[in-house]
Amino acid sequence: MDQRKNKIPVAVLGATGAVGQRFVQLLADHPWFELTAVAASERSSHKRYADACGWHLNDAMPEMVREMQVLPVEPGLDACIVFSALPVEMARQMEPQFAKAGYTVCSNTSAFRLDPNVPVIIPEVNAEHLALLKKQKEVYGWDGLLITSPNCTTTGFAIPLKPIDTAFGLKKVIAVSMQAVSGAGYPGLSYLDIQDNVIPFIQGEEEKMERESRALLGRMEGKQRVDADFILSAQSNRVPVSEGHTICLSLELQAKASVGEIKEILSDFRSPIYRPGLPSMPRFPILVREEPDRPQPRKDRGAGDGMQVSVGRIRPCPVLDVRMVSVVHNTLRGAAKGAVLNAELLVAEGLVS
Amino acid sequence: MDQRKNKIPVAVLGATGAVGQRFVQLLADHPWFELTAVAASERSSHKRYADACGWHLNDAMPEMVREMQVLPVEPGLDACIVFSALPVEMARQMEPQFAKAGYTVCSNTSAFRLDPNVPVIIPEVNAEHLALLKKQKEVYGWDGLLITSPNCTTTGFAIPLKPIDTAFGLKKVIAVSMQAVSGAGYPGLSYLDIQDNVIPFIQGEEEKMERESRALLGRMEGKQRVDADFILSAQSNRVPVSEGHTICLSLELQAKASVGEIKEILSDFRSPIYRPGLPSMPRFPILVREEPDRPQPRKDRGAGDGMQVSVGRIRPCPVLDVRMVSVVHNTLRGAAKGAVLNAELLVAEGLVS
Amino acid sequence: MDQRKNKIPVAVLGATGAVGQRFVQLLADHPWFELTAVAASERSSHKRYADACGWHLNDAMPEMVREMQVLPVEPGLDACIVFSALPVEMARQMEPQFAKAGYTVCSNTSAFRLDPNVPVIIPEVNAEHLALLKKQKEVYGWDGLLITSPNCTTTGFAIPLKPIDTAFGLKKVIAVSMQAVSGAGYPGLSYLDIQDNVIPFIQGEEEKMERESRALLGRMEGKQRVDADFILSAQSNRVPVSEGHTICLSLELQAKASVGEIKEILSDFRSPIYRPGLPSMPRFPILVREEPDRPQPRKDRGAGDGMQVSVGRIRPCPVLDVRMVSVVHNTLRGAAKGAVLNAELLVAEGLVS
Amino acid sequence: MDQRKNKIPVAVLGATGAVGQRFVQLLADHPWFELTAVAASERSSHKRYADACGWHLNDAMPEMVREMQVLPVEPGLDACIVFSALPVEMARQMEPQFAKAGYTVCSNTSAFRLDPNVPVIIPEVNAEHLALLKKQKEVYGWDGLLITSPNCTTTGFAIPLKPIDTAFGLKKVIAVSMQAVSGAGYPGLSYLDIQDNVIPFIQGEEEKMERESRALLGRMEGKQRVDADFILSAQSNRVPVSEGHTICLSLELQAKASVGEIKEILSDFRSPIYRPGLPSMPRFPILVREEPDRPQPRKDRGAGDGMQVSVGRIRPCPVLDVRMVSVVHNTLRGAAKGAVLNAELLVAEGLVS
Repeated sequence: MDQRKNKIPVAVLGATGAVGQRFVQLLADHPWFELTAVAASERSSHKRYADACGWHLNDAMPEMVREMQVLPVEPGLDACIVFSALPVEMARQMEPQFAKAGYTVCSNTSAFRLDPNVPVIIPEVNAEHLALLKKQKEVYGWDGLLITSPNCTTTGFAIPLKPIDTAFGLKKVIAVSMQAVSGAGYPGLSYLDIQDNVIPFIQGEEEKMERESRALLGRMEGKQRVDADFILSAQSNRVPVSEGHTICLSLELQAKASVGEIKEILSDFRSPIYRPGLPSMPRFPILVREEPDRPQPRKDRGAGDGMQVSVGRIRPCPVLDVRMVSVVHNTLRGAAKGAVLNAELLVAEGLVS
Repeated sequence: MDQRKNKIPVAVLGATGAVGQRFVQLLADHPWFELTAVAASERSSHKRYADACGWHLNDAMPEMVREMQVLPVEPGLDACIVFSALPVEMARQMEPQFAKAGYTVCSNTSAFRLDPNVPVIIPEVNAEHLALLKKQKEVYGWDGLLITSPNCTTTGFAIPLKPIDTAFGLKKVIAVSMQAVSGAGYPGLSYLDIQDNVIPFIQGEEEKMERESRALLGRMEGKQRVDADFILSAQSNRVPVSEGHTICLSLELQAKASVGEIKEILSDFRSPIYRPGLPSMPRFPILVREEPDRPQPRKDRGAGDGMQVSVGRIRPCPVLDVRMVSVVHNTLRGAAKGAVLNAELLVAEGLVS
Repeated sequence: MDQRKNKIPVAVLGATGAVGQRFVQLLADHPWFELTAVAASERSSHKRYADACGWHLNDAMPEMVREMQVLPVEPGLDACIVFSALPVEMARQMEPQFAKAGYTVCSNTSAFRLDPNVPVIIPEVNAEHLALLKKQKEVYGWDGLLITSPNCTTTGFAIPLKPIDTAFGLKKVIAVSMQAVSGAGYPGLSYLDIQDNVIPFIQGEEEKMERESRALLGRMEGKQRVDADFILSAQSNRVPVSEGHTICLSLELQAKASVGEIKEILSDFRSPIYRPGLPSMPRFPILVREEPDRPQPRKDRGAGDGMQVSVGRIRPCPVLDVRMVSVVHNTLRGAAKGAVLNAELLVAEGLVS
Repeated sequence: MDQRKNKIPVAVLGATGAVGQRFVQLLADHPWFELTAVAASERSSHKRYADACGWHLNDAMPEMVREMQVLPVEPGLDACIVFSALPVEMARQMEPQFAKAGYTVCSNTSAFRLDPNVPVIIPEVNAEHLALLKKQKEVYGWDGLLITSPNCTTTGFAIPLKPIDTAFGLKKVIAVSMQAVSGAGYPGLSYLDIQDNVIPFIQGEEEKMERESRALLGRMEGKQRVDADFILSAQSNRVPVSEGHTICLSLELQAKASVGEIKEILSDFRSPIYRPGLPSMPRFPILVREEPDRPQPRKDRGAGDGMQVSVGRIRPCPVLDVRMVSVVHNTLRGAAKGAVLNAELLVAEGLVS
């Protein structure tokens, strides 16, 4: 009772989609947040959530949300924080309206990721980019604020690239991804298209990987974010895997680094702003695997309750300097739980308006 | 009748395995060759082929082979040419014995691929390496001969690399493969291991890709084969696909080349020794796809009756020069049918002893 | 040239869907029929077929259809026969209009399968039901005619039930199906729904299996079709298989029958109207498998170019009398090729108007 | 510390196999039992468990077992209870030796399931069969004892059949199963065999389903177990699902029963010996699903931490009386966790020797 009163009321926009369902699952039982509203496009709104939503997660729909009425996506929701998993066009239109109306918007969409006044945040990687919020307020004059989390695949390699960049300086990166089907949302891909197949193309994905990674590893200069200046070549593929993106990386570094040094740097990596109290933050964001055949998405996507990136096969590259493979849980660390961690960071920093 | 008399008698070593079954399928109805013997390890030998073999191909076992008795793997088989799909240890021991005994051995195993006196051949790529057979005769004194076909994944990128190397000069290659389960033989991988998963490691595969590609694109100097001097970085992954390897490539070239020039070079590529009469040789070894999401293994592995390599997504690379994706049928072009084509080449060159 | 002139012009309605694509594939190279028009709903019409159609079959789209313009679904198409793979609501509206306008309509939809004046035909099972066409003409006054083919799953057990019923008399049937994903059309099921799963329900399927099988095995009395009077209990399941429905059957018979007698009856079964000249009719509609673990959908769906039903595991049933398993290719025998065979039958009977 | 001292020491025989791994996973953190030894066949014994075992479960191997030495399968293990997941031949030989040597043997193998002196137990269904242990002692003179758990598929329908039999009397059952690949152990089925396929045969499975279900629902007469006298026809199929068996049932009953009555009986079912304190016993062993398309193995296998059987699609059968579909977690309720529950029952009954 008391506990509930002290929780921060939150809402999910786009609550019936694939990432929206993950948000609902995570927020149904969150120590800091109380899910008070679910909103979705007109087709769903005014229905019971249980009726509006084709729940596809393996674990059952949380009881507490079954009877909630799906509301329209417009300011007026009883919440301080809204998590957005809207379709990108709708996000472009509605997220600023929520920010303007005073809400703290934690978006998982790509709508404003390239906006120079919107921080795209992974707490362990670039929490200092929250400083952009001051400029955001000046430029847009919103009562609330808007931050975003990056693309799921980008998350899967930006986390291991960060400590390597800090220690040795990144020059060039070649990233080839093998991405899970859940990354395309629900219903997403037809079984007939992806079974027994690889599709070597995902609309817009390579551009996101190339741009967002430079923003995430960029530095603040005054009020501005300046992109990192390494070069990245991304090739993205869809494979018949339900959850967990796998990324093969080759890196060229500015300084010499042995395989042993890189393993150590990755294993020891902690967010500079690590706060043991953030409920969704793993103690170590990277798990280094020593087995020759790991990481694997089915076995490693769950590491750290879906929040650790697993990295293995760290070895020299005859063309660039070093190679490795990373696996990230694309709908937890790479989407809903990443955005929830962002909200926890805002609370811890006293930034929730 | 007459036709049968004129056909060349051939045998398959390791006839009950995955590649062995493909050999049997192809040779049961070949215009030049008559399958006269099937041989396999002791466990299978002296059984009917239909009893010894756990046939796993979708098309039914050819009638003509069902009643054949499986023979032991030792010289004495009634055949001129033997196709070898033996386990590598057995191949190392037995292939030279067959060559010594006068057989023409067309191997699909890796046992002698790195032997400087054994040609590893893709007819469209390096038919001139057959000249090594003279040296083979001098050094080993065999009455017969031994040639091999390369690793299946290597085949899938060596074919498109050849004309690019000829036209523009290859400097560096990064190759990331997504390989079908049939590449691991039969029974091969457990369903429990590979379903809903990617395994980012295949024992020995990356080394084969790195070494064999340089041998295939190497040149003859006198009686010697000299490896090509580009550098290749290979990362190999197993994915839940039944047949068809997909390979993402990034290339650095010596000369400038536009995307349009590369497409043209690939589309126009023909073996210098193209012979319309070789039954298993496709007219054009490479099929360039223009659709943004092709090639895909399920849809493109069958191109040119499994003998064309499909190449698509040809586009600039921000780190090296150019990127592309290729798909090869791993058990046809990349294994049994590639070795059958090699035998056809030997016949056409008058080299079958 | 001459040949082309003598071919019968045919059109496909709903040509861009899953069954529509199969029709196009079969008719692009048919000895009797010339594909002259493809029609589809408004969204697709007036586009090039190659642009309007998300081709999902493994073999490439036939060249001859790529440039054809997709026409609206309305009489006026340059064709004698139209094959209908329309959505059921549209079929209900448009198929009679085509029949009225003089076309011979061979439908694969369920729209009129229960109409007492519309024959639902499997040539090997109930060609004599074509006699209903006389009544159809009297009742509806159409210049053309309309026949349908049954539901794909029903086809898979009605064919083996027919000779058993003739020989021994069927009393009761329990049929449990494991159905391929392609039966739900394209795009059909989401990968996220059906991977690693069984869905024990298909809307309307069990009713179709129960009703249509009694119609198919029914007899003509005068101008009327009288349903067969066995009782059937159907349970239908969706499984992660691309093509090929598998059906477990338990039968109760009026007369005693040994397993050997049933095998013989099934193996020997031929259509009473077997005509060697019908291009799509297999010589024997049923293939009895003796192996303990057959039939299997991946290995047996292709039997008889997709037109044979494979039956195995014939053995006594401790509850009813006899059990067996059948496999049918659901988009060939069970859909498009079944309807093409129906059209061939109409031509052979001189019924094409 | 104290807690550890009070725990009962237990060992796993066949600890490296598929069911053995599940035992290890469950016992690594059990409130009553302390895993003190892991034993396996000679090939594995004397290795570290982490080295001897190809761990295939999604969750990581428990830390506490990684360094344990794998011991040979012979009496002398430091344990009171041994859980057996041995291969059946080895079980037949070794399980009696352990019972003779004083161990309480809880077997998951089929070796002694048909022995009239060995109880085959599901606590909710037939705990009273433990009375056979007296006769076991008399006949065999063992210091210890041996009980078994039934076949995984049988478990999946015996649990719902029990309350129906009690209330309405079972006469006939037709059971068609769609079984997960993990039921065949590890490595078990080849990906190449089962992907995109159904295999309508599992060696010995149908006989087990037919015999064991009658034993489980049998009654004690004096010291003897008398089989139930309903008739069951089983057809078993393997489908591409990792875990969770699905079973379609048709039942004939002695008394009339409406669908509503059956739902109520199933929902209300509790073990007559329900003890809230048994750690692995779910409060309600059956979960009735009302949705038209449930139960599904991927979504429902986890119900009740893998210990509830989910039943749905309860509806009349036109041939027998009533139909339904059940889903059981085959390696938890149907194997390792079922045997652990049996051990808990023995402890609660004071029967552990």
